[in-house]
Amino acid sequence: MSDLWQGIDKVQYVGPQHGKKSGLAFQYYNPEEEILGKKMKDWLRFSVAYWHTFNQRLVDPFGDGTATRPYDKYTDPMDNALAKVDYAFEFYNKLGVDYFAFHDRDLAPEGNTLRETNANLDKVIDKIVEYQKSTGMKVLWNTSNLFTNPRFLSGAGTAPSAKIYAYAAAQLKHSLEVGKRVGAENYVFWGGREGYESLWNTDMKREQEHIAKLFHLAKDYANEIGFDAQMLLEPKPKEPTTHQYDFDAATTLNFMREFGLDKDFKLNLEGNHANLAGHTYQHEIRVAREANMLGSLDANQGDKLIGWDIDEYPSNLYETTAAMWEVVQAGSIGPRGGLNFDSKPRRTSWTAEDLFYGHIVGMDTFAAGLRVAAALKEDGYLDDVVKTRYASWDEGLGKDIEAGKEDFKSLEAKLLDVPQSELRAATQSDHLEQIKDTLNHYIVQTLAK
Amino acid sequence: MSDLWQGIDKVQYVGPQHGKKSGLAFQYYNPEEEILGKKMKDWLRFSVAYWHTFNQRLVDPFGDGTATRPYDKYTDPMDNALAKVDYAFEFYNKLGVDYFAFHDRDLAPEGNTLRETNANLDKVIDKIVEYQKSTGMKVLWNTSNLFTNPRFLSGAGTAPSAKIYAYAAAQLKHSLEVGKRVGAENYVFWGGREGYESLWNTDMKREQEHIAKLFHLAKDYANEIGFDAQMLLEPKPKEPTTHQYDFDAATTLNFMREFGLDKDFKLNLEGNHANLAGHTYQHEIRVAREANMLGSLDANQGDKLIGWDIDEYPSNLYETTAAMWEVVQAGSIGPRGGLNFDSKPRRTSWTAEDLFYGHIVGMDTFAAGLRVAAALKEDGYLDDVVKTRYASWDEGLGKDIEAGKEDFKSLEAKLLDVPQSELRAATQSDHLEQIKDTLNHYIVQTLAK
Amino acid sequence: MSDLWQGIDKVQYVGPQHGKKSGLAFQYYNPEEEILGKKMKDWLRFSVAYWHTFNQRLVDPFGDGTATRPYDKYTDPMDNALAKVDYAFEFYNKLGVDYFAFHDRDLAPEGNTLRETNANLDKVIDKIVEYQKSTGMKVLWNTSNLFTNPRFLSGAGTAPSAKIYAYAAAQLKHSLEVGKRVGAENYVFWGGREGYESLWNTDMKREQEHIAKLFHLAKDYANEIGFDAQMLLEPKPKEPTTHQYDFDAATTLNFMREFGLDKDFKLNLEGNHANLAGHTYQHEIRVAREANMLGSLDANQGDKLIGWDIDEYPSNLYETTAAMWEVVQAGSIGPRGGLNFDSKPRRTSWTAEDLFYGHIVGMDTFAAGLRVAAALKEDGYLDDVVKTRYASWDEGLGKDIEAGKEDFKSLEAKLLDVPQSELRAATQSDHLEQIKDTLNHYIVQTLAK
Amino acid sequence: MSDLWQGIDKVQYVGPQHGKKSGLAFQYYNPEEEILGKKMKDWLRFSVAYWHTFNQRLVDPFGDGTATRPYDKYTDPMDNALAKVDYAFEFYNKLGVDYFAFHDRDLAPEGNTLRETNANLDKVIDKIVEYQKSTGMKVLWNTSNLFTNPRFLSGAGTAPSAKIYAYAAAQLKHSLEVGKRVGAENYVFWGGREGYESLWNTDMKREQEHIAKLFHLAKDYANEIGFDAQMLLEPKPKEPTTHQYDFDAATTLNFMREFGLDKDFKLNLEGNHANLAGHTYQHEIRVAREANMLGSLDANQGDKLIGWDIDEYPSNLYETTAAMWEVVQAGSIGPRGGLNFDSKPRRTSWTAEDLFYGHIVGMDTFAAGLRVAAALKEDGYLDDVVKTRYASWDEGLGKDIEAGKEDFKSLEAKLLDVPQSELRAATQSDHLEQIKDTLNHYIVQTLAK
Repeated sequence: MSDLWQGIDKVQYVGPQHGKKSGLAFQYYNPEEEILGKKMKDWLRFSVAYWHTFNQRLVDPFGDGTATRPYDKYTDPMDNALAKVDYAFEFYNKLGVDYFAFHDRDLAPEGNTLRETNANLDKVIDKIVEYQKSTGMKVLWNTSNLFTNPRFLSGAGTAPSAKIYAYAAAQLKHSLEVGKRVGAENYVFWGGREGYESLWNTDMKREQEHIAKLFHLAKDYANEIGFDAQMLLEPKPKEPTTHQYDFDAATTLNFMREFGLDKDFKLNLEGNHANLAGHTYQHEIRVAREANMLGSLDANQGDKLIGWDIDEYPSNLYETTAAMWEVVQAGSIGPRGGLNFDSKPRRTSWTAEDLFYGHIVGMDTFAAGLRVAAALKEDGYLDDVVKTRYASWDEGLGKDIEAGKEDFKSLEAKLLDVPQSELRAATQSDHLEQIKDTLNHYIVQTLAK
Repeated sequence: MSDLWQGIDKVQYVGPQHGKKSGLAFQYYNPEEEILGKKMKDWLRFSVAYWHTFNQRLVDPFGDGTATRPYDKYTDPMDNALAKVDYAFEFYNKLGVDYFAFHDRDLAPEGNTLRETNANLDKVIDKIVEYQKSTGMKVLWNTSNLFTNPRFLSGAGTAPSAKIYAYAAAQLKHSLEVGKRVGAENYVFWGGREGYESLWNTDMKREQEHIAKLFHLAKDYANEIGFDAQMLLEPKPKEPTTHQYDFDAATTLNFMREFGLDKDFKLNLEGNHANLAGHTYQHEIRVAREANMLGSLDANQGDKLIGWDIDEYPSNLYETTAAMWEVVQAGSIGPRGGLNFDSKPRRTSWTAEDLFYGHIVGMDTFAAGLRVAAALKEDGYLDDVVKTRYASWDEGLGKDIEAGKEDFKSLEAKLLDVPQSELRAATQSDHLEQIKDTLNHYIVQTLAK
Repeated sequence: MSDLWQGIDKVQYVGPQHGKKSGLAFQYYNPEEEILGKKMKDWLRFSVAYWHTFNQRLVDPFGDGTATRPYDKYTDPMDNALAKVDYAFEFYNKLGVDYFAFHDRDLAPEGNTLRETNANLDKVIDKIVEYQKSTGMKVLWNTSNLFTNPRFLSGAGTAPSAKIYAYAAAQLKHSLEVGKRVGAENYVFWGGREGYESLWNTDMKREQEHIAKLFHLAKDYANEIGFDAQMLLEPKPKEPTTHQYDFDAATTLNFMREFGLDKDFKLNLEGNHANLAGHTYQHEIRVAREANMLGSLDANQGDKLIGWDIDEYPSNLYETTAAMWEVVQAGSIGPRGGLNFDSKPRRTSWTAEDLFYGHIVGMDTFAAGLRVAAALKEDGYLDDVVKTRYASWDEGLGKDIEAGKEDFKSLEAKLLDVPQSELRAATQSDHLEQIKDTLNHYIVQTLAK
Repeated sequence: MSDLWQGIDKVQYVGPQHGKKSGLAFQYYNPEEEILGKKMKDWLRFSVAYWHTFNQRLVDPFGDGTATRPYDKYTDPMDNALAKVDYAFEFYNKLGVDYFAFHDRDLAPEGNTLRETNANLDKVIDKIVEYQKSTGMKVLWNTSNLFTNPRFLSGAGTAPSAKIYAYAAAQLKHSLEVGKRVGAENYVFWGGREGYESLWNTDMKREQEHIAKLFHLAKDYANEIGFDAQMLLEPKPKEPTTHQYDFDAATTLNFMREFGLDKDFKLNLEGNHANLAGHTYQHEIRVAREANMLGSLDANQGDKLIGWDIDEYPSNLYETTAAMWEVVQAGSIGPRGGLNFDSKPRRTSWTAEDLFYGHIVGMDTFAAGLRVAAALKEDGYLDDVVKTRYASWDEGLGKDIEAGKEDFKSLEAKLLDVPQSELRAATQSDHLEQIKDTLNHYIVQTLAK
């Protein structure tokens, strides 16, 4: 094989005997290892995000891009776009992942009309499809960028202008066709501009009706062309908008239920977005899991002391353990989901090598989380904690209430003369400090093996 | 009449000619004045909250209560409870409000059994009902305190113990009966403990099924006894819990839809709770209004730089203008809603007189907000802004899309060859800075009249 | 005069009789009007920020720039830079301001070496100086951009590389020379990259010693060339860095005191930065004022529910009243300070006209704040509140304590046998709700005149 | 020995071979084990906080206390206070700690005068001193509660009333005497009410002058009586006040420098307080360490998604590793500091046993953090990262700049003609993702031993 990412060898599984210092090797991720009846790689289904990995220049609102990439030498936009495909597939191979994800606009530059834009994109897709045949690489999901171009300044599916909305629909049409060509397993909608800057000039209801219709039209067209990807909505509370309609998992479920989208759509959830909405990542996954709406996961982490989206590679073992616990309880990350690294290096870690370091810490931290979650599951530790805590509902009065055999009058009759002390005796300590201590021991001792 | 609140006269309407300094007089609230076809008092339906006004000792986590109240001399709990009713009704009269609201536990102390507790409460209710007959005072809503007593340490409707749940049901039964006796126009559920401290030991799904059942049982029993109050859920994101299930309006609507509660329940929304969830008060009211789920409003304000519930009396003209704009657009605060002052003085403003100052600034600020909102409505200013912004949807392509006459193929056909410049020309500046400037002028010039 | 900003006439003072709708006219700003013994324009000293007004493309992390500007037709960077000067001075004239502010890199493009970069800049400065002669326009402050170029990715004055630091010093040298040429009244340092991404790899102490030395070298060189501007540091807590060393006013004062910079430097404070640090704007100004360290003000506002820097034009009358109250108490905005609009339109208000609307709402809101603050001062309202509250310190025991006549033993002797009731009687209610009510009345009634 | 905490045996050191589930045993804390030349217990100096451990009823703003404690049977306040001392010393012994800490008001009830209050306290102190003789238990620090009693509603050292201030001084006098009797190693001032509710009625400057004087008087009196404890100020940004003057470490240092307190006072820093100020715990410790102002540490943790003080027992290995890294770099926790558990169980973990679980997870997590920090130190890993990053300052140009041999002119001469590419080449990637990966490996592999 070629060596476009010069001097960077294929990343190997090494294991914790490697020593404390890490480098270009996995310590916890061992793709073929069996965990709870599945291979690690099938639990995790890691995906590289085209935008952050190959296009991100590491700009911020106060600084120009710092990234240096080996394909920067291609200055013509189409040349660059086509060359980057070679680098991308070598990157996937060296990293050892099976999936990638992309927006339409990540792959090729826009032309003067949608027809020209589509033609540019199709050329790159042709090359990608060829590579897929020879490598077996799969697309976890694709999506359409309906937020970067100034025309979308007030939204796409919620644009005040019907013409912009119509353009978004036309762009989506081609994006769905691309999804079918590359065999995308999911199709994601992230509504970066679908929200409001100010309520004073916004008809929120009408905007939400419009975008719900757009989602229905998209699903209809996907059906029409036989593109059977799982459709996903991705919540985020704000940024770039003041308020984004898909604020969090529960808000998005409410929207789906109101507009009859809950049969065909599920959720793609991200850790940093969860934090910006005031939630833990685990909370968002739990909400989706319990509603049978978990679709896929964006793997990244935020800094809860920072109020904007930083998309760090995941490195916090507590957060990945919690996320993977929910996945273990669900049986999988949705019907066809995976862990897509919507993550980027810091502006200060700008070399090509840092792209590998970033994915390694992210993949290893999620693999570690899976190992700890599996140990918790196999020991039945957390399941026992929960079973014990709610035991009063599995028999007698609790069981009768759940079965609908009680009403306010029957319950009053039973409780009216119970003294306070007996009621208080029905409460139990949850020994939460002990649980936290135990989780620490699970993390250390599982990972040390 | 007696003069229990010694030296405090009935609060008068004075009007802005009064001068800059305020005192025990209204400047903007003139109950009988007509605004947009209704009397001010019928738009606003101000309600005094029993707990904050009469019971709140102004404690905080680091300090004992500072409040001094004229009925502190009654040291026996039942004597105090009965005496306080006299003070309460004189307070309502001096302040000039028509509504009040209360929890069951605000009114009387608990006994050793629910039977004894109910008996204590009934004595106070007897006295309240007598006062209602002579004064015409109405109850905006009543509710049940299912969070203060240690027995509810892990919830009531979501308690891990079935016995605690059963007790909550029995307590609710009597609270609904009380609601019927006092003719409460609404009945509120605020789930202060209905959430989780930690996800690790929580069966969120089972807990939510339990509380949904409790709400259904409550509605069934209310129907059975002919208590036709509007049922309301009140969102709050957290505090005291780490996460409260009724996080915000959208989350609560999702819960209602999932469990079939959306026909019988609406929302009671609070400004401070909105802020803690990362929203403006206006946002929460808009969400409820557009879903036809606006039930009632808790009138208070938070400090967005402070991360806990402070329940300040409303004093911010921007926030009340925004809230009342939503109410004007809705036509009313829900079918039977009002503005209940879930507000308390600061720990440093601890005199009886401060209870009047607090309500005055709150009532006047909401009355001012109504005046400004009415001026905006009468001029058609904001309606015009919105109508102009979305004009492309009222004809041609936009109208066809809304009518379901377009799909992805028809839209692509129309947009495929449109040049970028033409698309960009379809975007409009929203001149948001001008709108903000105009709102300032509306506030000053409307209120100066 | 020319009409480069086509169709936009000079902004006029109109006054509140103008009606509720605003437009291209001032309602509250009347530059020559006397307030508390000075002209309004001398209290306010409004300044236009070159970067936000003329260079800002209205990008955000998820979108390309939306701004359209009349000088976009100049595609060569130097042509554009030189043409923009004409537009800028016409803008100042049409808006009616006397001051502007700029970074070195706002004015001209970089060359391949600092020598070339300086040459580019000098050409533009030549033109600016000519304009200054003919118009009398003054520079409130200039500064150096040490954060946008990738070379500053880990800081300038705190760069881990001594070479980058040395370059920053050389760049600053020329920027000080520019300041002298344009007669800048102040010179500002905002350390956008002077902080850390992670503490693990940061020698904070060494970095702070380095930047303190840089400030000393800058002051030395300014003295050497006879550039007598007031030197200012501008706090911001974070963004783009995880932590910026000049976190807030108090932190920056601590740094100044530690490194002997408190004699020669003062503070430039910004509203949005204050909010990001968890403070009100008023708090930051108060801290600076009481330390005699108020230098100048950046006029903008944040959204306290949003965790990043949005730089809105000020429109909140409460915030400008509070800010101007501090200024009135101080006697002026620092020795030579003013109100510089570090503000930009929203991405959705992208027309040239919106630049005028934005400055108008900002200038009018600050002018309104000045009017209200002056009314509060003239009436002695707030001064009386404070005087009464601390009256016990102006005589007797309090006066003796302040005079150093008491110690722990003498105080114990006086207090040892005082009963609790007498101590409690020494506390006073601050009637804070009444104060808030009164502030509302001051705002409405002062501005309605 | 007696068995007041029935059924709870002395906590043992077990070590990681114990298995994943934790219980009443330490896994990482082994007091006599040597780490970096000192015993673990001498690095950590754990202290039990009297208030949270023995007095905290686990109330919150919406609920009554849930705690049940074996000494609840003593209903007379003085009986309870005296009995609690027995329970406290048995607790210390069973837990295996050498230090405790207390407020004056934790130990005994107030009387009607300070004289009576002091007498109550002295009785308890007599008993404590006896226990100290027989057990060797030491007091890490004592302090005075100047915030709970309503008389302090507007502050103590910053009270608007001179009489309240004088009372605070008298109370402090006795508290210092108590400190001397029990041999307290430090004396702490936490200014819970020393801040403002509103700036409108606050003379911040005068208040700060007053409290600075109080601190000077306290130090003077301590000197007079020969109480040589290290004096400490404890920052917190807010709660209960809107703004507390000792906002964070840097703000408090600024105050110390302004008022000449920096010679005699150092800082006591707390994790939860750090988060409320927008900082990490590590940041606050770093600030103090580099200023040679680290005095002692309050060991607890917050939840960064929660905006109030929750005082959880520390359980996060990342945070304790970071904190102990700073301590290892400092050589110790201040001259005489330790780790005081300003931590409490959750309201849902209310049994006596939970007090042990809480301290165990806290002590073990800090012991683990010490082990990891020591491994990082012994390997020189982080020291090497830093040394390499700043290497350019240890020779040539960097060394000359630090030595004061360069000025703006000499630096310009060197940099004026350096091309951009050479400057960019002076920047280095910090490979931050690799560092985070390495830290994970250090945690797992150090603790697994």
